[in-house]
Formats: sequence, C-alpha cells, structure tokens
Amino acid sequence: MQIGMIGLGRMGSNMVQRLMKGGHSAVVFDARPESIATLEKLGAAGSTSLEDFVSKLARPRAVWLMLPAAIVDKELAAILPLLDEGDIVIDGGNSYYHDDIRRAGELKSKGIHYVDVGTSGGVFGLERGYCLMIGGEKDTVQHLSPIFATLAPGIGDVLPSPMRSDEAAKASTAEQGYLHCGPSGAGHFVKMVHNGIEYGLMAAYAEGFNVLRHANIGTQTTEADAETAPLSHPEYYQYNLDIAEISEVWRRGSVITSWLLDLTADALHGDAALSQYAGRVSDSGEGRWTISAAIDEGVPTPVLSAALYGRFASRGNDDYANKVLSAMRAGFGGHHEKPVK
Amino acid sequence: MQIGMIGLGRMGSNMVQRLMKGGHSAVVFDARPESIATLEKLGAAGSTSLEDFVSKLARPRAVWLMLPAAIVDKELAAILPLLDEGDIVIDGGNSYYHDDIRRAGELKSKGIHYVDVGTSGGVFGLERGYCLMIGGEKDTVQHLSPIFATLAPGIGDVLPSPMRSDEAAKASTAEQGYLHCGPSGAGHFVKMVHNGIEYGLMAAYAEGFNVLRHANIGTQTTEADAETAPLSHPEYYQYNLDIAEISEVWRRGSVITSWLLDLTADALHGDAALSQYAGRVSDSGEGRWTISAAIDEGVPTPVLSAALYGRFASRGNDDYANKVLSAMRAGFGGHHEKPVK
Amino acid sequence: MQIGMIGLGRMGSNMVQRLMKGGHSAVVFDARPESIATLEKLGAAGSTSLEDFVSKLARPRAVWLMLPAAIVDKELAAILPLLDEGDIVIDGGNSYYHDDIRRAGELKSKGIHYVDVGTSGGVFGLERGYCLMIGGEKDTVQHLSPIFATLAPGIGDVLPSPMRSDEAAKASTAEQGYLHCGPSGAGHFVKMVHNGIEYGLMAAYAEGFNVLRHANIGTQTTEADAETAPLSHPEYYQYNLDIAEISEVWRRGSVITSWLLDLTADALHGDAALSQYAGRVSDSGEGRWTISAAIDEGVPTPVLSAALYGRFASRGNDDYANKVLSAMRAGFGGHHEKPVK
Amino acid sequence: MQIGMIGLGRMGSNMVQRLMKGGHSAVVFDARPESIATLEKLGAAGSTSLEDFVSKLARPRAVWLMLPAAIVDKELAAILPLLDEGDIVIDGGNSYYHDDIRRAGELKSKGIHYVDVGTSGGVFGLERGYCLMIGGEKDTVQHLSPIFATLAPGIGDVLPSPMRSDEAAKASTAEQGYLHCGPSGAGHFVKMVHNGIEYGLMAAYAEGFNVLRHANIGTQTTEADAETAPLSHPEYYQYNLDIAEISEVWRRGSVITSWLLDLTADALHGDAALSQYAGRVSDSGEGRWTISAAIDEGVPTPVLSAALYGRFASRGNDDYANKVLSAMRAGFGGHHEKPVK
Repeated sequence: MQIGMIGLGRMGSNMVQRLMKGGHSAVVFDARPESIATLEKLGAAGSTSLEDFVSKLARPRAVWLMLPAAIVDKELAAILPLLDEGDIVIDGGNSYYHDDIRRAGELKSKGIHYVDVGTSGGVFGLERGYCLMIGGEKDTVQHLSPIFATLAPGIGDVLPSPMRSDEAAKASTAEQGYLHCGPSGAGHFVKMVHNGIEYGLMAAYAEGFNVLRHANIGTQTTEADAETAPLSHPEYYQYNLDIAEISEVWRRGSVITSWLLDLTADALHGDAALSQYAGRVSDSGEGRWTISAAIDEGVPTPVLSAALYGRFASRGNDDYANKVLSAMRAGFGGHHEKPVK
Repeated sequence: MQIGMIGLGRMGSNMVQRLMKGGHSAVVFDARPESIATLEKLGAAGSTSLEDFVSKLARPRAVWLMLPAAIVDKELAAILPLLDEGDIVIDGGNSYYHDDIRRAGELKSKGIHYVDVGTSGGVFGLERGYCLMIGGEKDTVQHLSPIFATLAPGIGDVLPSPMRSDEAAKASTAEQGYLHCGPSGAGHFVKMVHNGIEYGLMAAYAEGFNVLRHANIGTQTTEADAETAPLSHPEYYQYNLDIAEISEVWRRGSVITSWLLDLTADALHGDAALSQYAGRVSDSGEGRWTISAAIDEGVPTPVLSAALYGRFASRGNDDYANKVLSAMRAGFGGHHEKPVK
Repeated sequence: MQIGMIGLGRMGSNMVQRLMKGGHSAVVFDARPESIATLEKLGAAGSTSLEDFVSKLARPRAVWLMLPAAIVDKELAAILPLLDEGDIVIDGGNSYYHDDIRRAGELKSKGIHYVDVGTSGGVFGLERGYCLMIGGEKDTVQHLSPIFATLAPGIGDVLPSPMRSDEAAKASTAEQGYLHCGPSGAGHFVKMVHNGIEYGLMAAYAEGFNVLRHANIGTQTTEADAETAPLSHPEYYQYNLDIAEISEVWRRGSVITSWLLDLTADALHGDAALSQYAGRVSDSGEGRWTISAAIDEGVPTPVLSAALYGRFASRGNDDYANKVLSAMRAGFGGHHEKPVK
Repeated sequence: MQIGMIGLGRMGSNMVQRLMKGGHSAVVFDARPESIATLEKLGAAGSTSLEDFVSKLARPRAVWLMLPAAIVDKELAAILPLLDEGDIVIDGGNSYYHDDIRRAGELKSKGIHYVDVGTSGGVFGLERGYCLMIGGEKDTVQHLSPIFATLAPGIGDVLPSPMRSDEAAKASTAEQGYLHCGPSGAGHFVKMVHNGIEYGLMAAYAEGFNVLRHANIGTQTTEADAETAPLSHPEYYQYNLDIAEISEVWRRGSVITSWLLDLTADALHGDAALSQYAGRVSDSGEGRWTISAAIDEGVPTPVLSAALYGRFASRGNDDYANKVLSAMRAGFGGHHEKPVK
C-alpha cells in the first residue's frame, strides 16, 4: 500500500527504504531537499511542500511522522488543514504518550485517525526490521497492518516461546514483531517502558565493565591520608583484564547474552579504552517518562532511575550537589577538596 | 581426556553428560548415591568414596568440583591428602575469588595446580554449552583446553563481531565460548561481575514489566486523604496491557532482545500473573561480591546495587527500616500507618 | 489581624490556636462540627456554612485553606463565588505547585489574590511554630506578614549563621522562620523539595538503624546451599547493640544530630523493636513531585528517589517485579523460591 | 587522669586541649615537632620519641591514637614493645572495626587492653564536645570514663527524650554524649554506621539544593533535537530561588532542621554558588564499610549506597561506564555524543 513519510532522518529514511523493498510505495517530505532526493533515486515520490506531499497521497491517506518529539505538534498543525476526514496520521517517533492521547482526541473531532507507533531497532532496523508497539483504534491499526508487517522483522530465526499457547499465537501478531498494544498512547507507553528498560540494561553492562576495568587498582599506589579510604587488600586487585575478549566470551552461552552485549563487544574490539568518547551520555525522554509513570503508579524503579541519573551526572548536572557536599565537609571537618592529580 | 567430577547437582551432572557426549570419560562422586547411579547408566565411572574416586583417575588427575561455595573448602580439605604433585583441582562453582587466590597458594605449596572456572549457562548448558571464564596458570589451563572446548558452546550461530581483529581472534578462544581471563581468581572475578550484571539486567526487565502491569491504575478508585499521594491524572493510566504479548514482540528486532527476555516471555506465556511465585528472591553471593569489589575499587555501581537491594527487600530485610520510618512519621506528624486493605 | 481557616484537622486546628494565642482573631469552618466546636471554646468564631464563614470575615478577607491536596480544588470552587475582589486565598496545605500556578491565574482574573504556603513543623508546630515557605505577589505576602510572623517560630534559641551578612538579615524574614520564596508556586515548590529532602534524611537514619539491628547476624546459623549467599565471617557480626541508647548518644555532639533523630530516639526508647508498626510507609505526594521536578530539570536525585522507592516497596508495590525475578531464576537456573521460615 | 596522645592533627590536638581544660594532664607525640610545641605551650608534656612518650606516662598507661586509619597498625607496632601488661591502647580514629577485633586479640595475648572509640564532632568538638562510641572490655572502658566524660559534650541544653525510662537513664551514659556500645569493634562499628548515615543525610540535602538551584531551567532555551529530552513545561521552572535564605528559613521549626543544615546554611550565606569548590568529594572509608556490612547482613541500604556512589562519580570514577554507554548508543542508534557547550 501507499505511505506518506514526513521526516527523513536516519530512522525515517531507512523505514521508507524497507517499505519500498517490501513492495509498498512511498511519498516523502523533509525540510532538507537532499534527503528527499536520496529517496527519490531509490523510487520514492518526492514532494516540494506539504501541499504537494498531501496531493500525491491517495485517500484515505496514511501519513507517517518520523520526527523529534519536540516538533511533532508543529508539523501536525501544519499538515492538519490539508487532510481530509478518514485520513490517518501515524506518529512513529518517540512522542510522550500523553501527547498521543491529546492528539488522538483533537484529530478525532476532525474525523482523522491517529495511530502511535513506538519503533525500536535503531540503524539496524533497515536490515533486521523494526519492533513496532502500536496504539490506536483497532480498525485503523488493522488497516495499516501491511505496512507494519513489512517494517517488522517477522518471525525470522527467533525460536517460538515454548509455553505460548496456540490461541495466543493466533490472536496476536507479536511473533511477527509488531503488536497492537491498546488504545491511543498504548504504543508509545510500551515503547517508553521499553526504553526505560534499555537504559537499565545498558547501565548494568556499563557498570560491570567499569568494575572489570578497575580490577588492577591494587597495582597502583594510593596515598594514606585522612581524606582517602585506604585499599585494605591490594592483592585482590591485580588483574589486567582483556575486556574486549571478556565481552566476546559472554556472547556465547552465558545468561547475559543480548543484542546490546553484541554491540558492546564490537565497540570494545574496536578500542577497549573507548577513547573516542567523552562519556557525556544524552537521554532523549523516554527514560524520564518511564520514571514519571512509575512514580504516578507508585511502582518502585530503583534500577531504571539509577540508570537515568547516571546519564544526568555524566553531563555534569550533579556539580552543584557535589559542591554542597564539599562545603559541608569543609564546614564540619575542615576537610579540603583534594586537587585533581 | 578424563575428568573427575565431585558434585552431581543440576550443574555438575549436566556437565558430565556434555563431556561424555563430547568423547571424554568421567569419574564421578557425590554424597547422594542415586546421583552417581544416574550418571553411571550414561557411561560415567561411579565411585564409592573419595579414595575410590581418586584411585580411578589417571595422573595428572583433573578433579572438577561443582559444589555450593560454602562447602568447597571442606571438600577440598578431604580430597587434598589423596592427591599427588602435578594433579589439578578445578573449582567450577560460584566461589568467591578471594578464596581462589588463597587456595591456589595453598595448593601450590603442595605442587598441585588450581584452576577457577566461572560457569554460566544454567540448566540450558547441557544443550547450549556453558560459557566458561577461567583463572589460573597458563600451562594448566592449556592442558585442560579439550575439556573447556567441549563444555563451551563453540562458535555456533552467533555472528562474529565485525570489529574484532584477526589477531585477537587467533590469540583467544573467546569465540569458542571459553576464555583464560588471567591468574588465579580471574575466572571467578569475571564470573562474579557477570552475575552482578545479570542481577542488573533482570531487575531492569522486572521493573519495566511492573510499570506495564500497573498501567491500569487509573481505573481504580483511590482515596483522597492526607496520607495518600493523589493520582492527578487517572486518564493516563487506563491501559490493560497484555504483558506476555509485549514480551513476545520485544523478542523481535528491538534493542532489548536477550536470552533473559526470551526466558521471561516464556514464563509470562505460562501465566502472566506469575501467581505461582511469592516474589522472595534469593541471592547466591556473586551480586554481593560484585558490589564489594566495586566499593574497593571506588567504582560507582548504583544499578547493580539497586538490583541486589531489591532482592534483600523482597525477603523482608527492609522491615525494620520501614518501621523506623513509620515511627518517625508518627513522631513528627502524628501519622498513623494505613491498614492493609 | 483576622484569619479565616477552612480545614480543622491536626494542622489547621493547631495553627488557629497558635494565631489566637498570638493575638489574632479567627473564623473557622470544617465539615465536622465537633472540630469547629472545639475551637469555638478556645475563642474562635465558628461558622455553620461557607456562606456564614465568608460573611464573618472583614474585607479584604484572608481565607486560609488547610486541606488534603486532593480536595483543595473542590473547596476552592465552592467558596470562590462567595468572595470579592481584593480578597486573599491562602493554600497552606501540601498542594502541588503546578496547581498553585494554575489557581493563581484563575483567581487573578477575578481580582482575588492567591498565596501558597508550604508549612513544616508537624504536630509540634503549635508550640515550636511553623516553618513557612511562601509564594505569591509581594504586596499580598507583605499584607499577611503579621499572620506569618505569629505562625513562625521566630529567632528563638537557634543561633544566627555566622556568615550571613547584615544586608541579607535585613532583607529577609528567614531568621524569623518564614520566607517569601518567589512568585506563585514558589512556596510549595520549596516545601516540596523540603519534603523530598525529609524522605532522604529519614531513609538514611532508617537504613543505618537497620544495619545496627542486624549486627548480630553472625550469631545465627545460616544454611549452606546454592541458593543462599554464605556469611563468610560470622565473627564480625556478633554485636547485640542497644539501638535506643545509640540513638541517644548520637543526639549529643555528633555530626548527625537533628530533630528527626530526636524523634527517632524517643520512639526507640518507647520500644526499640518498634513492634507496634507494620512498616507500611505512606507517601503523601511531595516526594513524588520532587523526583518529577528533578527529572524535568535533568538533575540526579538518587538518594531522594531511593527513599521514595523504599516507601513504595514497603507497601508491596514491588511484588510483581519480584515475581518476575523469581520466574527468571526458575527459567535459567531451575531455582525454586525458598519458603518463608 | 593522665592521657597519652599520639597524632596531633586537627582532631588529636583539639581533644588534648579539651581534656586539659577539663583538668586532665596529657603527654603528647607527633611526627611534626611544631604540633607538639603548640600543645606544650598550652600545658601538655611534649615528648621527643615514642620511648620518651611512654616513659612520661604513669602505669597503667592510657595511650590514645588519633591517626589516619591507614597508619594505625604501623604506629601500634612501633609502640607495642614499649608498653607493659595492663596498659591501655585507645584507637580514637576511623579504623575499620575488623582491625579492632584483630588488634584487641593480638594485644590481649600481651596483657594489654584495647579500646576502640568512634569520635564524631569534627572541628567543633573542641567547644561542643565529642560524641563518643566505645567498644572494648567493660572494666577498661569504666576505668577511662573520666576521660570520656570530659571529651563528651555532656547533657548540655539538649532536651531529654521524653520516653526514655529512668532505668535506661541510670544504666547508660548516652545522655552525657558517650556510650559503651559493646565488645571490641563495637565502637567503630557504630561510628561506621554513623558516618554511613552522615553520607546519606548530606546527599539528601545536596540533592535537594541542586533541585532548587535548577528551578529556573525553564528560563533557558533548550534545543529540540532527537538527542535531547525536551522540557515540556518551561512555565513550571521559572523560579530564581535564594538558596541561602531558604536554607536559613529551614533552620527554624521545619522537620529537616539539623546541625548539617546549620553548617550548609552558613556556607551558602558565604557564597550561594559555592564557587570555591570543584565538587570532587572524598570518602574516607566508613561509608564503604557501612555498605559492606549491610551486604554481609543482607540489609538493603539504597540511600546510603547512592550517597557513596555520588562521591565516587564526583571524582570521575564513572567515566569508563559512561563511555560504554556512549559506545552502545553509537552502536545501535548511530547517536553521536553532544559536544560540551
């Protein structure tokens, strides 16, 4: 079927390509003409304006937005007057699910359908397919299923879950890699939690590798002064570990095998010191929203929060708190900060 | 080659079977005769005592201990007088690596070699193979390599890491699923961190699924009193999510695919409410030791600690702390504990 | 001056009494006539309805709401039609500061002033005075200063901060125990963070006392099995500590003296086992909002979050997450949950 | 009575002065002659060597060590041959209680008594007195009680705990500010937990002040890109708060009053930006040991751990973990680290 795609960044562009490979046709638009041109060469119909974009789509139109969460509302406001009753807007980016609920309500009043799709898979999705978590009305989601089925990975070589009943397998498309999770917002809610988990998984590996990397701390001389916790047993920290090879061995048969571990191992093979990175880690919203939802629900999420806070601190947002600590220590104990070596 | 196995629990018994399938011969011993009998039927040589066990092993003997960490020293003390110079003791259980360093020193003085092997793979290891993290002298580890190669999964269908250099691939056996990590204790050190990470990964999923499960909290009426945080926006928590199907869709193409997710999905397909479990989660040592090592190293591990503490609390070990909190609230605010509904 | 008080619970009733002792007059209203009667005996003017209440207040009226956060809007809607331009509504409860900003805007359009006051001091405030954190227009706050000055503790015997400049001391009323923190919402924002800190302080003490209480764990025999982390050195955990006396000694000269410690010590003197408490700890909103604000700001608050999550878990909200962990452990390791002893 | 003090740093020197003011005599020794000279001017008997020091002490000698934890064993080894049966060694520093247990055993075999004293009070102890937590044999502790009573603050103006029974008050010296907590190690065990709590309290305040400081984040323009979590509601973060005055108002009548808050307020009055500090926060051992004890006990201490980890991260010990996160993000999403502005 035909899809209109607005937003041809890394994700949007790859999704268009995967859809066209799967036999669908695409009309594309982006603020950067070169992004449009690239896809035109691959068979997409480019457009020169939103009006042109809309005019090239057959009704009921399916308009997929693949944009940073912060600009979806602006784009939606621009295209909405051009759409007709029965058209469908799909937000496949990382929107906050609160916005989905609001938008679905606003669009419904105009007779336009709204579908929220959480999309996971990153830059590998073009080849592997995208895991899709979908929210919206049942009929609309059903109507779009050819699109979802193509974007999703399919069963592939992932083994079926032995305990899954045949009824469950028949009733849902989860095994194909896409799932209608519930009404408006449910797609992005599930994707939000997915990313919250992702933060936690990533941090678990990162902390573990950090412990491995410092396993030789006993080979370094440390100072004995009142400001420094002494290392009682340096003999236990004499290991110079090959972290890249450790990540490699964990990929085979261990309990902690995962795709994230595969990626990490590969990065460590490139440079185990990871010296090209400064260690300032961005967070793009879903981790925050997960914590916010957990707090509203009264559900403890210490691991997911710790993972998020580690990112905040990596960007220096803990600086003032640390200064307060140093000021307190100076206050009660006359302790001076130790200079950086 | 020939291996002697002491400890025929779930892990030890499966490892013997995998070794015999791989062409090795095994002499086995356990306090439970029925465990010995089972393996004898499969071709192992049983033994009636430690003396009998030792007498059936060709020199230099390779004695593999697969025992709970807490009883390794006792068993070792019992068998040590029966061994000869040049023999090898392998501890394949979950010993604390401090103990490995001590034991290796003790055994060295008797001319006996000690190898510590961290083993991951659980009950699936029999079929999938075990990921092995090994510490000890190079020559001894090299001597045992046929055993390790059989126990390990081998390359299998896990794709090679694209960035791994040919030199690295030639220099290490990591791709086969076993790795000589360093001198005595290094195997269990790496396994310890592996399990620390495992705790963190597990908790990340568990917290995420808990957030999903409570996504319908807005459908429940909550009380408005001074003791209870009101839910400002119940409209955002109206989702009755099919958690088993969500875990299934995440298995395909998402960033958070992993073997632990596969297992979780399967358990959720069986019963998404997991009502057969009480939620009292054991911890068997490595998580604790990981935190202890991190603290010695001065390395922050907030996620791994939070995961460990969640297990402590699941067993009620936070009870007294919570009573202190309630006592404080009663003290300053006259707040009474709300009764369980 | 004259104050009208709606909401005669523990806090509201005590505040009226303190104001009357300080020479102010009070008109009071509550849904429970007996609460009104009690204060009438002490000199307050009771009222039989909101209309009656409003009619007894001189213009510009100062109406102080001391209500659970969840019902402020309802009460405000009921009284608003009865008020006149220039009147003042003060919310002294624990409202979310978002609501203050909204309400201040709504009331401003009617010419009514809105002041938000975060109030700390608990049941002791009647005698000690209340610490007041105030948000709103400067003139309105200034107009109410006689009320604030009476409710607040005053300088008392708290020593002046040596580094505080005379200019600062002249420019602000902080030393008197009340402070105009900023525009609408600023009072409750500061109170929110105050309570967030309070949660963290409380949890720090509670965790510490829990560690003290378990200092005799080495005197108990523990099982040696593969499910249980063995206690390597029971000789280090042989202390039967007198926790009440320890809390008492900490009250004098230590770095951790505080009012919360005073209260805790007192509770522990009553019963060090705190057996009257079940350890189900409520949270009434501000702790949640603090985390929410921190996340919006991108500021890490691991301690404050951990404190909040501990309360969630104390009420069993971690149950499902723990079941997921047990299910995973059963899945990969065949581990069974250990029964409760 | 007479005390011998080895170690005349900030703490040791002040304690000698307080003891002499209280009518005790002191023999002092330190590697720095100028530290000895200073106290000689105030009436202490200086000494030129350990031999000289010991010779000036009447038997049974009471030798108080006030040294960094890392050098206690060395000093003890040096002085031990000079002591006689019945003499007493007191370790008043921040030793690990494991070391106390070991040392007490070693000294006992020589007939020398060992007392461990955890000392809190910092630079203010000279005037306020020191809170003393004591471990060791009952008789020896009793013998030293005149020293403890002088060092401790005494009842002062701290109100008695209303619930404390007269029996408890008679049976213990806690109200005087010193307490015999139990056998060897108990003093430092209790002090260890005291400092663990201290870390938690400090971090709770520090995080809270950090949230206050960033309350104006909505006044800053933030970028809208896929790497950055957008601030949905800048209108809620428009507060420029006077943090010093807020800390001041909290000192009077609030639930979170404490001595640490007093100190913090004073530092903030000096410079609310705390620009003289870099925010690299040392930790001197007790925080680490508290977590280690908690883990041995199986007691969750998420708040105390988070406080400790914040200090580790403040010194950059999370750098490698953060690089691993950035590498993962680059791996799955092609995300580049954002440059520092």
